[in-house]
Amino acid sequence: MIGNLLQPELVELIEKRDFAQLREILCNFDPPDIAEIFTDLKPGDEAVLLRILPRQTAAQVFEYLSLSDQEQLVQALGNEQVAQILNDLAPDDRTALLEELPATVTQKLLNLLSPKERKIASELLGYPKDSIGRRMTPEYVAIQHSWTAGDVLAHLRKVGRERESFNQLYVVDDKGRLVDSVRLRNLVLAELNTPASELFDHQSPALRATDDQETAVAAFKKYDRTILPVVDSNDVLVGVITVDDVLDVAEQEATEDIQKLGGMEALDAPYLKIGMLSMIQKRAGWLAILFVGEMLTATAMGYFQDEIAKAVVLALFVPLIISSGGNSGSQATSLIIRALAVRDITLADWWRVIRRELVAGLALGCVLAAIALVRILLWPNKEKVYGQHYLLVAATVACSLIGVVLFGSLAGSMLPFLLRRLGFDPAAASAPFVATLVDVTGLVIYFSIAYQILHGTLL
Amino acid sequence: MIGNLLQPELVELIEKRDFAQLREILCNFDPPDIAEIFTDLKPGDEAVLLRILPRQTAAQVFEYLSLSDQEQLVQALGNEQVAQILNDLAPDDRTALLEELPATVTQKLLNLLSPKERKIASELLGYPKDSIGRRMTPEYVAIQHSWTAGDVLAHLRKVGRERESFNQLYVVDDKGRLVDSVRLRNLVLAELNTPASELFDHQSPALRATDDQETAVAAFKKYDRTILPVVDSNDVLVGVITVDDVLDVAEQEATEDIQKLGGMEALDAPYLKIGMLSMIQKRAGWLAILFVGEMLTATAMGYFQDEIAKAVVLALFVPLIISSGGNSGSQATSLIIRALAVRDITLADWWRVIRRELVAGLALGCVLAAIALVRILLWPNKEKVYGQHYLLVAATVACSLIGVVLFGSLAGSMLPFLLRRLGFDPAAASAPFVATLVDVTGLVIYFSIAYQILHGTLL
Repeated sequence: MIGNLLQPELVELIEKRDFAQLREILCNFDPPDIAEIFTDLKPGDEAVLLRILPRQTAAQVFEYLSLSDQEQLVQALGNEQVAQILNDLAPDDRTALLEELPATVTQKLLNLLSPKERKIASELLGYPKDSIGRRMTPEYVAIQHSWTAGDVLAHLRKVGRERESFNQLYVVDDKGRLVDSVRLRNLVLAELNTPASELFDHQSPALRATDDQETAVAAFKKYDRTILPVVDSNDVLVGVITVDDVLDVAEQEATEDIQKLGGMEALDAPYLKIGMLSMIQKRAGWLAILFVGEMLTATAMGYFQDEIAKAVVLALFVPLIISSGGNSGSQATSLIIRALAVRDITLADWWRVIRRELVAGLALGCVLAAIALVRILLWPNKEKVYGQHYLLVAATVACSLIGVVLFGSLAGSMLPFLLRRLGFDPAAASAPFVATLVDVTGLVIYFSIAYQILHGTLL
Repeated sequence: MIGNLLQPELVELIEKRDFAQLREILCNFDPPDIAEIFTDLKPGDEAVLLRILPRQTAAQVFEYLSLSDQEQLVQALGNEQVAQILNDLAPDDRTALLEELPATVTQKLLNLLSPKERKIASELLGYPKDSIGRRMTPEYVAIQHSWTAGDVLAHLRKVGRERESFNQLYVVDDKGRLVDSVRLRNLVLAELNTPASELFDHQSPALRATDDQETAVAAFKKYDRTILPVVDSNDVLVGVITVDDVLDVAEQEATEDIQKLGGMEALDAPYLKIGMLSMIQKRAGWLAILFVGEMLTATAMGYFQDEIAKAVVLALFVPLIISSGGNSGSQATSLIIRALAVRDITLADWWRVIRRELVAGLALGCVLAAIALVRILLWPNKEKVYGQHYLLVAATVACSLIGVVLFGSLAGSMLPFLLRRLGFDPAAASAPFVATLVDVTGLVIYFSIAYQILHGTLL
């Protein structure tokens, strides 16, 4: 927004090379707002502006940019300035950037870091992709068991400036294992000579560095904290993770799930930023797979070709019946995928889900069957449109709808369970995937019921 | 998990009325874990356990329960205990609960509150549903412009204990308007005699109480804060909102969007908790609307009945073609709805989106058309299955696929824009809704192209 308003003015100043004026304008804004201004500029212009900002501000602005913008900037900037910015970035933000870049670029950038920062970056990068270890920062504050509140505050004044967050301070034993924690809040409220041990939380929920990021989202929701400690497999404190990073994770996971549900690969970049070719690739893959699956409908229809030739009226209801199955499957699969993602249900609940979907599917099927019966039986010239056996046709459509909707609900709800059980992401059971599955089965259900009911009359 | 393990033991103790033992077991756990144990119990048993917990612990456990559990408990508990718990709840959690209950129950509960707490609750409830005002807490700490860091810390020791969060302290002028803010972090790091004004942030991004909660999610992501101030239309500071509440909002909004995308009303309750009847209602409404819309396919097919009778082979490809349109529409609509929700795009971007979808839709249509051509032309007994004019049939199918996929991508991407422009929630443009729209249009496209290409041969 701000960017759009300022853009013509800024672009003009960049062309005029009026850096003094540019710097003055930009320094009137806060880093998040400068970042917003940047996103509306061309990558080359962004690099120019970043170079003229004061070093600390530049690093802060960089932190607020999206990963894809950061990537473009790294390529447009000189080595020296990249090194400066990388060294000033918070470790967790640096990891997120390095992770995004091609491996060769990452290696090159790691070499630009100071030895101390490189050590932190490589350590963080050693954890599996999408693990908590990648998102944590090693900049926590550890305190001694024997200190008073005053000692802790004095220690903070000494080391705190370099730490990203110390809302929570941690007590470790001589092996570095996490023992307890103190809230900064309680330290501030206490008299200075209070022993810190009196202020301990006596409860230190900790995350494992190798666990998936989604675990962190669930833990922050459960414990209502702004910061949580991260330990390795020996309970040794290795870092902390803050809630603002987790907010990003939660949004990102939801975006990926929504895109997969829509029947494509997750884009991993904002819609307007991703290259046209890679967007088409990410969509074409699944679309082609679904298309090949859907070809089975042509095969199934071909199998019933004689029936269709004898009773063309049957063909009229094909889209209606298979799409109803697809819609009910889409509802069921969206419900279950989200419930699994936010941990409302677990794998063990599959039996309870089947029972619920059995009832819901039957009820929904009956609702649609009733609507179809009303529509066919109350149609003004029903005998002309549906032929003399319109009653039998109506019965065929109604029974098929109940069968197809029931099958859709069951298939849509069980597929995410099956995928997770097999070790896949349940969100891969997209609505279109379920619809394709139900389309083919729906045709078989429809024509089998038609054969039973209409045998001897229309067929 | 813990609940499942302990459940038999706890249920036995409840039946034996061994309250001393129960209390001892529960007091070994932290409030979040007790809340987890509670969710696996029957509502009556939950009420029993809540009664035997120490008063403060009971309020904490209650805070960690889901809204639907809280609602059941309120109905199972006596007035006196409800009043105690309500008075001990944080204002924002209390508002969330009161908002969830039927209006008459809310009125009754408001009467149970102490006059001071009732005033806070009614004030918060005065803001529109889903507004930031409903989620904020009025328990912020305001400081004077002239104080030193030491003065502020002394003030905190006096009033801080009652405040939910003081990671950020606020400076207001004599009319109560927000002027500036100080981070607790900087206060703690400063020497005690530093004037607080030297520590001011000089940037106070503030939220409006009447704005939608989604604005808060976006602001927390932009500013990386754990707490943000909330002001009224005169810039008067009325409260603060914390990031942990916003994490809940972000998850809840994503869940609603996913459920709407799946083609149903948002459930507003966990899958296994919601009553069967209300779940069926929330699903049946949209399913019936979609079904009535999809009936237009039968009408459209009826219109082309003569063509189908002449060339049954056309009917074979109906499901394949319309589902391809539905799938591409589903991809486009999921992409755009999520991009609008996380503000990657705004209404003003509609023209850029159309251009992208035009290219993407054409490319995706060509991919599917190529697959279809290969399949039809390389099929072993193609002349037997598709008749002597299989080349013309193949051309019809290929051209229809390009048209339908292009239309699906454009309709799927533009519908969310149209809905938001008309003031509706763009997520109402569910994948099944788009599919239904594309199904009907797809049939018209298919049979029109068939008529053009096959006129004089098959038709």
